[in-house]
Amino acid sequence: MNVRNVYDIEPKDAGMAGVRIRVAIGRDEGAPNFVMRYFDVAPGRSTADHAHAWEHEVYVARGRGAVVTRDGATPIRSGDTVYVAPNEQHHFENRGEEPLEFICVVPHTD
Amino acid sequence: MNVRNVYDIEPKDAGMAGVRIRVAIGRDEGAPNFVMRYFDVAPGRSTADHAHAWEHEVYVARGRGAVVTRDGATPIRSGDTVYVAPNEQHHFENRGEEPLEFICVVPHTD
Repeated sequence: MNVRNVYDIEPKDAGMAGVRIRVAIGRDEGAPNFVMRYFDVAPGRSTADHAHAWEHEVYVARGRGAVVTRDGATPIRSGDTVYVAPNEQHHFENRGEEPLEFICVVPHTD
Repeated sequence: MNVRNVYDIEPKDAGMAGVRIRVAIGRDEGAPNFVMRYFDVAPGRSTADHAHAWEHEVYVARGRGAVVTRDGATPIRSGDTVYVAPNEQHHFENRGEEPLEFICVVPHTD
């Protein structure tokens, strides 16, 4: 068993301007099936628009913004859960004035 | 893609006094690998002490309490992530005065 506050985890540059990622629970903690990551997106910034073969399960911890797919933009805010299906093109935008922070769980892909 | 606020999901009795569960993302949403559930535990209450073959990946959204294993009690609070390994005996206790609310992600077990 392992407890860590997300803010005690060193953030990594996610390769996207204004976006940082913390790997909260993954292979280093012994997790056999999936990875819990914590993203923060600065105001006015967004994650890269992309698609991949695995799903996202997201919980918005702080802030507000939108998840954007080929079907358009859907508002998101603290307390929302977001399911992104495999192969669905998507990105997350911060449309607020504070950081947009969310948990994003994915299967191991390596 | 599907967005739902956790408080818009109907809570279910979890079979434990003072504990409710909302299934935020699961098979009904098409999720192929794992399930995101949202628990709330009333002040002074706790989840059942148990162990199972799958892991828990937890993010504490609100409140404070403890996760208790055979090694003792570890405090938890909003913003903490908790990894519980497969087969590790554990339960969650609300030791605060507001609800203890947390995301708990598990693999499909059916």
